[in-house]
Amino acid sequence: MADAAAVVFRKARLEDLRAILELLNDGKVGNVLERIEDPMPRLYTDAFALLDSDPNQLLLVGEIGGRVVASLQLTFIPGIAHQGTWRAQVEAVRVARELRGQGIGEAMMRHVIALAKERGCALLQLTTNKARDDAQRFYRRLGFTASHEGMKLRLS
Amino acid sequence: MADAAAVVFRKARLEDLRAILELLNDGKVGNVLERIEDPMPRLYTDAFALLDSDPNQLLLVGEIGGRVVASLQLTFIPGIAHQGTWRAQVEAVRVARELRGQGIGEAMMRHVIALAKERGCALLQLTTNKARDDAQRFYRRLGFTASHEGMKLRLS
Repeated sequence: MADAAAVVFRKARLEDLRAILELLNDGKVGNVLERIEDPMPRLYTDAFALLDSDPNQLLLVGEIGGRVVASLQLTFIPGIAHQGTWRAQVEAVRVARELRGQGIGEAMMRHVIALAKERGCALLQLTTNKARDDAQRFYRRLGFTASHEGMKLRLS
Repeated sequence: MADAAAVVFRKARLEDLRAILELLNDGKVGNVLERIEDPMPRLYTDAFALLDSDPNQLLLVGEIGGRVVASLQLTFIPGIAHQGTWRAQVEAVRVARELRGQGIGEAMMRHVIALAKERGCALLQLTTNKARDDAQRFYRRLGFTASHEGMKLRLS
């Protein structure tokens, strides 16, 4: 059993991309599969460069003994509303399948909550597919409220 | 009756800030009131400058005959997931109270859909308070699906 306390969270590096893509494919709910190819498709290295250079984006990984076992994307969003409140938003939360239920996701989210507070964000937000009861329970345990409808419109 | 076709949508300018704050206060659902003061509080001009200078942020206003009657914030979010998909996200949608129900909100959202497609976004997303049935119906008419729970955690 993995020890969630042993997970180190840090900003993703280019060499983590393959592991991140594997995590993304592992957690798919009937969605676009990632292209895990050698060489790495340019679309991913381009996207990585964008995230890496934007101070309002953080591609985060959790590693145990040098192995990437979890990842998510955190976006810091400035705003006018609510007296200039910043929001932090989480997307694409993943934990390696065989390590789930051991507190790694919770440790990662607690890390994100701390980061968002450090940045002065008043709110942390995310959307989670309604089909995933387990994910909703997970976020409720962390203190999230399902106060909003998460509405999506596909454009392509 | 206002003619929604007469609304011009454009990027907000500093001198629109007061009108935007008035729109934000007008639509409040038991939330933080904006400080409409003269001189304009620094927190708003700072927030405006951040949005104005970030190519992934668009503070949008709709005006009729030089009067700002609607506003929203659009954020373009790059990502690794779904083969490097970009998302567009809408926050803080407001239409002047006395002009609601006349198609201005719909015109603004259709403008946003076109902008998001131009930028190559595969998805447009937003969250709307579950207490606001009218807003949910509005977004469903535009083609949005309430597929997700919109989860929020207050940090301050």
